[in-house]
Amino acid sequence: MALIVHKYGGTSMGSTDRIRNVAKRVAKWARAGHQMVVVPSAMSGETNRLLGLAKELAPSGSSAALNRELDMIASTGEQVSVGLLAIALQAEGVEAVSYTGWQVPLNTDSSYTKARIESIEDSRVRADLAAGKVVVIAGFQGVDDEMNITTLGRGGSDTSAVAIAAAMKADECLIYTDVDGVYTTDPRIVPDARRLHTISFEEMLEMASLGSKILQIRSVEFAGKYRVPLRVLSSFTPWDIDINEEAKSGTLISFEEDEKMEQAVVSGIAFNRDEAKVTLLGVPDKPGIAFQILGPVAEANIDIDVIIQNVSQEGKTDFSFTVHRNDFARTMELLENVVGPATQAAKVQGDPKICKVSIVGIGMRSHVGVASKMFRALSEEGINIQMISTSEIKTSVVIDEKYMELAVRALHKAFDLDKNPA
Amino acid sequence: MALIVHKYGGTSMGSTDRIRNVAKRVAKWARAGHQMVVVPSAMSGETNRLLGLAKELAPSGSSAALNRELDMIASTGEQVSVGLLAIALQAEGVEAVSYTGWQVPLNTDSSYTKARIESIEDSRVRADLAAGKVVVIAGFQGVDDEMNITTLGRGGSDTSAVAIAAAMKADECLIYTDVDGVYTTDPRIVPDARRLHTISFEEMLEMASLGSKILQIRSVEFAGKYRVPLRVLSSFTPWDIDINEEAKSGTLISFEEDEKMEQAVVSGIAFNRDEAKVTLLGVPDKPGIAFQILGPVAEANIDIDVIIQNVSQEGKTDFSFTVHRNDFARTMELLENVVGPATQAAKVQGDPKICKVSIVGIGMRSHVGVASKMFRALSEEGINIQMISTSEIKTSVVIDEKYMELAVRALHKAFDLDKNPA
Repeated sequence: MALIVHKYGGTSMGSTDRIRNVAKRVAKWARAGHQMVVVPSAMSGETNRLLGLAKELAPSGSSAALNRELDMIASTGEQVSVGLLAIALQAEGVEAVSYTGWQVPLNTDSSYTKARIESIEDSRVRADLAAGKVVVIAGFQGVDDEMNITTLGRGGSDTSAVAIAAAMKADECLIYTDVDGVYTTDPRIVPDARRLHTISFEEMLEMASLGSKILQIRSVEFAGKYRVPLRVLSSFTPWDIDINEEAKSGTLISFEEDEKMEQAVVSGIAFNRDEAKVTLLGVPDKPGIAFQILGPVAEANIDIDVIIQNVSQEGKTDFSFTVHRNDFARTMELLENVVGPATQAAKVQGDPKICKVSIVGIGMRSHVGVASKMFRALSEEGINIQMISTSEIKTSVVIDEKYMELAVRALHKAFDLDKNPA
Repeated sequence: MALIVHKYGGTSMGSTDRIRNVAKRVAKWARAGHQMVVVPSAMSGETNRLLGLAKELAPSGSSAALNRELDMIASTGEQVSVGLLAIALQAEGVEAVSYTGWQVPLNTDSSYTKARIESIEDSRVRADLAAGKVVVIAGFQGVDDEMNITTLGRGGSDTSAVAIAAAMKADECLIYTDVDGVYTTDPRIVPDARRLHTISFEEMLEMASLGSKILQIRSVEFAGKYRVPLRVLSSFTPWDIDINEEAKSGTLISFEEDEKMEQAVVSGIAFNRDEAKVTLLGVPDKPGIAFQILGPVAEANIDIDVIIQNVSQEGKTDFSFTVHRNDFARTMELLENVVGPATQAAKVQGDPKICKVSIVGIGMRSHVGVASKMFRALSEEGINIQMISTSEIKTSVVIDEKYMELAVRALHKAFDLDKNPA
């Protein structure tokens, strides 16, 4: 008997028929003898509907008072889901009880609309599990010290599920979603893309943050921090497939790195075409210059991704970084009017038509030649590399966006990702 | 400066435009210097939508576990309303904060779907009012000792508003609804029907329970018990009408009876065509017979309204009572198969085509001739009276339903209800 957490996304909860299927699947797991905690999202479209109503009425600008009300409203989507799922489980003959975030309670700070989990009290949930009940907990939401309802931000139900699994030391947290696992790259670009049976947390972090939008990145960080075994699998398999088969399906995100280190080095190819590149040419090479450039950008709440500064020549250097494409115009304005003059940069250049392609894999740095194999594969396709950035488990290049699909396909092939690992 | 509670029904909250109007009206009252607590219902149709989803999934039969989930689901309708109204108030430049039932908290027993209010802790609300905020509280819902969400049953938002007004000793509780007050009878039947400027609690109780579905009867009981001045008024007047005019509009339900006692005796004509009549003929006239008849009916959860037992002749009597028309078939079955044989009744007769018409007025019993005036008016129209029942403040007759409109019009005229009181 294991303690298992299931998480179901909005699509899986999208209609009463689908909720009934979720209930049948959970009932199967409960009948197999497992203690079950289930964390559903709001029915698909519901959160947008609710926030749409709020938007029609809201004053312009933002405030804590307004955000508090948005959380009051948005949290009802999951509250309806847990009630409906508990009822559907009861109809399957399974004892079930639902809880909101504040009932658990799942304690957070007071950052409405993007609260952080601080602690989870699991005594009530444990008592129900011991009594043989399935416990259904509303994702995406919590409660602050003053008993105000908070939400964790978009995709927060993943984080809720992982945090609950961590707090309760669950044996595994299964994230049911509309894809059947994590792939070596996007199958829409590379038809040969292969589902990974396992991936390390670090690789998953890179894959998630680089645009494989399967899991909210905070949930992966949480799983890594608390070493929660996490599995991504499809909610569209028939509910009555064999439970042992289901338990091995999808992709396991594992914290057991050791054996992986010896295996194939590159696990997947990630990409992101939402970025734009900005360069300051002829910046004086002196202490504090990076802060002078990035300080005002960060103050404007613009997130920065890759940063490159090369060695200087004759006391001048070039400084490049990437931002989200939506922030490109504002960033250019800041640089031209504020930063450029202050840093005496000779010129500000920008290019929104770029993309970032990365090879991701544990132990990459310890394997000589991985990066050079990447650069050779790109060069053979005539693709010019504009920026390079590396970390322990990934090597990223910024290239012209028109070459993105070509680059992904070439790299997928170069690293034999279409072939099963030995 | 007064402490005022406003309650808005589902129709008044039915769209973002209407919510904006509610916000403008409340803002007007707040700007006039009043401390404002507002209790809105769910947006019209929302509670039915939510319970419809639940019904699609629910197991057959009823249970506390199921009812707990229904409350979890249904309570979200009001939770969305309070958030939206608080946001709309903020957009009007008024500081506003919303609370669910559990946040106040409004404590109830654990009778899910029909919980009773036990206590209200108002310190948090008082602190907000003192800080100049409008406080928006979700109607219809509360929380039990175990922190489970409960609801008060249909129309429970009226009860919430009155209970909050009582707990906070509000100066007045204004119930905004889709009618502009309490009338001497239904204007659709008697075009001359006149709006009452004031009505006593006792009269309002009779008017409400007899089918003038303006206020949930429990809210009127509550208002009477805690002596909360209650006003029913229209939410369809323009929001910007003069506040002094608005404050005197509608019908005030008052607990100051004394002066009323001296005035016109009959305040209104109530009627109800949802009843059916059942009679057992030739019942042995011996102790315990009423219980033998009504015990099994009550056990089947069938509510009984009027009960009549006349003096016996030759050791036999006739026993009649009325039930809701929906319960008529089941009641007849019970009587024929269970009760009739046990009581040796000679015959069971039933008639679903009846109606009850009542004259309602404080101090009726102390005024000779009121009942006889009623019977004469009906007799002049050739209407046969099947049953008569009286109380301190009403006299009801059961008649053939086809005469209902005629009887109501005749009585309205006989008691001069179309004329303003002197």
